[in-house]
Order: sequence, then structure tokens, then C-alpha cells
Amino acid sequence: MQLDSAQLNAFATVIDEGSFERAAAVLHVTRSAVSQRIKLLEERVGQVLVRRATPCTPTEAGQALYRHAREVALSEADALATIGGGQHSTTRLAIGVNADSLATWFPHAMAQAAEGQAITFDIHVEDQDHSANLLREGRVMAAVTADPQPVQGCQVLPLGTLRYRALASPTFMQRHFAQGVNATTLAQAPMLVFNRKDALQARFVSRITRRKLAPPVHWLPEAHAFVKATRASLGWGMTPDPLVEDDLKTGALVELIANKPVDVPLYWQCWRLNVQALQHMTQAVQKAAALTLLR
Amino acid sequence: MQLDSAQLNAFATVIDEGSFERAAAVLHVTRSAVSQRIKLLEERVGQVLVRRATPCTPTEAGQALYRHAREVALSEADALATIGGGQHSTTRLAIGVNADSLATWFPHAMAQAAEGQAITFDIHVEDQDHSANLLREGRVMAAVTADPQPVQGCQVLPLGTLRYRALASPTFMQRHFAQGVNATTLAQAPMLVFNRKDALQARFVSRITRRKLAPPVHWLPEAHAFVKATRASLGWGMTPDPLVEDDLKTGALVELIANKPVDVPLYWQCWRLNVQALQHMTQAVQKAAALTLLR
Repeated sequence: MQLDSAQLNAFATVIDEGSFERAAAVLHVTRSAVSQRIKLLEERVGQVLVRRATPCTPTEAGQALYRHAREVALSEADALATIGGGQHSTTRLAIGVNADSLATWFPHAMAQAAEGQAITFDIHVEDQDHSANLLREGRVMAAVTADPQPVQGCQVLPLGTLRYRALASPTFMQRHFAQGVNATTLAQAPMLVFNRKDALQARFVSRITRRKLAPPVHWLPEAHAFVKATRASLGWGMTPDPLVEDDLKTGALVELIANKPVDVPLYWQCWRLNVQALQHMTQAVQKAAALTLLR
Repeated sequence: MQLDSAQLNAFATVIDEGSFERAAAVLHVTRSAVSQRIKLLEERVGQVLVRRATPCTPTEAGQALYRHAREVALSEADALATIGGGQHSTTRLAIGVNADSLATWFPHAMAQAAEGQAITFDIHVEDQDHSANLLREGRVMAAVTADPQPVQGCQVLPLGTLRYRALASPTFMQRHFAQGVNATTLAQAPMLVFNRKDALQARFVSRITRRKLAPPVHWLPEAHAFVKATRASLGWGMTPDPLVEDDLKTGALVELIANKPVDVPLYWQCWRLNVQALQHMTQAVQKAAALTLLR
């Protein structure tokens, strides 16, 4: 079965842009032309590919086709760049990144990779323990992940370790841990947790107490707000070293228990494609990671 | 129809915690007790209430009941606090906040509201043009939103204006806007956009050019990374003043066109409930907003 490249491209653009209108603007065609192409493609493969919602997302069948469409587009942009054609074609890199990498070292990698390259980024924020799913679903072509198991069709490179510490303000320590950090006090002291996927605090608690506790929880899914809330004595929480260097130096934040870090090794998983933009990005990621993460 | 409060509470806790396991830990019962209570509640109302997934979410029927359950819990905590009972009961405030407020003034409001109060926060990050939906769905009981239309059962308070400017690095300006900022150059220059819901850049472009353009886009859904990427000349983007005060002073970032801000008035919408914790939070939000937002 030979798929029509204009149809495939219209489909992938709708997923990228999230709506038929925006895809039409990007492709310089009318909205109904986009709609028509996708309808024809769906008839051709005999499956609904786009979930019409705000934003538009791929169905399960759509996911596989989306990945195919993106691989074709990447290869094509690469081939055109090599033969000097298509001078204005931009390569879009969809990448999954954990929030703490994005808040610290990852923007450097983006800046470096984009230098002199016609690359745009489509960054998806996802917990490091879950970003491999984005790869599996074909939503991203590369990801910073805690999962060393290669996703099908991906290569894996170790990036180094992001070191987390259980931190709190001195005021909070006095208020909640004057009797020591143990199962009794940890069960009472409010705990900051990034979101429902963030298991770092629970990991620390179970390492210290060998138990699962259910303390009061503040859910706070923004890296800098998380640190600010820790400083303001709202709770204790696991924070990556590069985000709190100054706070540790000045004593604005202190470790619950000295030298009990939780180390999260991070990996770069990316589609096994011989494409320049992706290779460039991989090198930039390795370089930026080496400057911030522990070896 | 009289609903069983233990069942209702088990249901709301599963939604809060995202899983049956965690709800069981919080309620100090077994997982199967939680499961049983929810099954009975679902039989009672004759509808599926929980979408069993990771995380668990409420069905449409579940949303209405969830809001009811949370209102009951808030009122109860308030009543108990008044009569001096239930000294250890903590009130959980689920709140929708736009990312830029969370990255700037909102943590101060959280810190102040929690001072001396048994409050925990469940913060949901949502675009200011969409957070009213979270209220409508009953997922949050209050929200920082750009929508002044009161959601049913909510009161609305104006908080002030968050001022955005179209910013870029001097390097980027020279590279892309040496010929001026107009429809031709704006159609070519890479644009940073927070996510698919962020219409600020498009608003700026259409104000300047009276057109919809489709320039290359970097999607970057993290406030500080967004600023870092702007500094690193990846693109131009709309950034709120409180996040870039220093950059504007030092000249690390400059306006695309002098004095063409986009002002976003923000509102506090919150459930019309005579509950202390919520009133406390409302006051803290007004105070913290007044220190940062424009009147």
C-alpha cells in the first residue's frame, strides 16, 4: 500500500499543531483541504486516525502512522539538506523531557543544537519514569528518561545522574523534625510532591522507614514554585541539586538527613534514524548533560 | 437519596490521590475496602464514577459527585475547626493556576495561606484561558483565570493585570528583525510558544500585522526554560514582566517593538462556600497578587 505523502503530511501536521486550522495555516492550504486529505487517508487505511478534540490527538492507529510520517519527514529534510535543496525546510524535533531537566540543563542543549541548524523543538514535559511511553506512542522521537530499557527502534545513551536530596527550610525542620526524622515525624510533616507520577518522596520515606506512610501532601507541579514552597516552609520535598545550589550554600534549605541523596540516572533514548538534526541534538544533549549531571 | 459518607469520601480520595492504593493508605483501610465502597456508591447512583486508569479520573457523572464530596468535606472540616474538634483534620485546597502565576507570585499566596492553618494544596497547572474549565469540571475549587465570566456557583474577584511583552535577545533581533518587525520578518523568525493553548504570540502578531502568520514554532511548556531559550536566541516569545525584570534591566532581552505589551487581566474564581480555609486563601491570593500584578 502506497500512502499519499500530502495526506500523510496533513495528518502529521494536524497532530503537531493540535488543530485543523493551524495545520492549514502551516501548510498554506484551506482548512477543508486539510480535512479532505485526512478523510482520504483514513479511508485508505480503513481506520480513524485523528481524535477530533481540542487539541487533536492521534488514535491508537494514528500513533503508528504518525511515527511513520515523522520518520519520513525527518529523512526527507535530511536528504534535501544534503543535496542542497529545500533550503527553507525546517526539521521539527519532538522531545520528551522531565521537568527538572528542563528547569536546569536541557535549555543549553536546545540552544546548542539549534545553532546554525533549521531545527524547531516540540518539547513535551513528562516525568522521567513515564517519558518512555511518549516514545512508545510515537509522540516524541527522543526523550530524557529514567528508563534504560530501549523502546523498540530506539538507541539508548546514559547521560549521567541527577542527584535529589530531601530538603526543607530550617524553620520547617524545627517545627516538624525537632524529634528527629523517623516514621512518626515523617507521617505528620507535610510533604511536597510534584505530581501523581512523582515517586521520589515515597522512595526516600521507604528507604528511611521501610514503610509506606501517608503524610499530608502538597501537589505542586512546577519546578521553581516547588523550590519556593520548600523555602517558604510549606513542606519538605525532593529537589535536584542543580536547582538549589545557592540555597544549600546559604543554608536556606537543609537536608532532612545529611548525605542521603536519591540518585536518578538519566538516559537519552532516540529513534534509530540516520538523520543529521537528530544526531546534532544527541551530541548537544550529551554535552550539556555532562556539564550538569554526575558521572 | 442519602449518600453514605464513607463511600463518598473513598471516592473523592481516589480522585485526589489518583489510585486505589494511595487512597487506601490515606484512609488507613485496605485497597479492597476502598474498591468495595466505590462499587457500592456506583451501584447506588447507577453510574460509573471512576475511570480506572493511571491516574484514576472521574467520569462525567463522577465530576458532579466529586464536587459535592469536596464541598461536604470542606464544610465539615470548617465546622469541626469551629467547635474545636477534629484537631488533626487537614483541608485540601485544589486550585487551578496558570504557569506564569505559579512561576512568579502564586507561591507567596500559598505560603501565607498555609501559615498556621491545616491546609494542603493540590495545584493544577492550566492556561489562564482554560482554567475555568477545571472549575466547571469540579476538579478545582478555585482558579486563577483570565475568564471574568463567573462559573456556576463561583464568585469572581479581579486580581490585577499580568503584563506580557514580546521579547528576544539582541542577537536574535539582529539576525531576524534587522529589517524591522513586520509581516515579512515575523513570518520567518522562530517563535517560542508555551503550548497549544497559548495564544499570546498569535495575539501580538495579529495586532502588529492584522494577519495570522505561521512562522516556525518552538513549543516549550516550562516558564523558566522559556525565558532561558529566549535569552539563548532560540526564538522570540511573550514573557510576563515579573519573570524578566533583570533581563530587561541588563538588556539581555529587549522588546520587539518598544511599549507594545499585551495585558492579561487575571481573576480569582472560587466556589461560593462559607469555609474558612477558602476565605483565608482568597485573602492571601489578593494580597500576593496586589504586590506583583498591575492595577
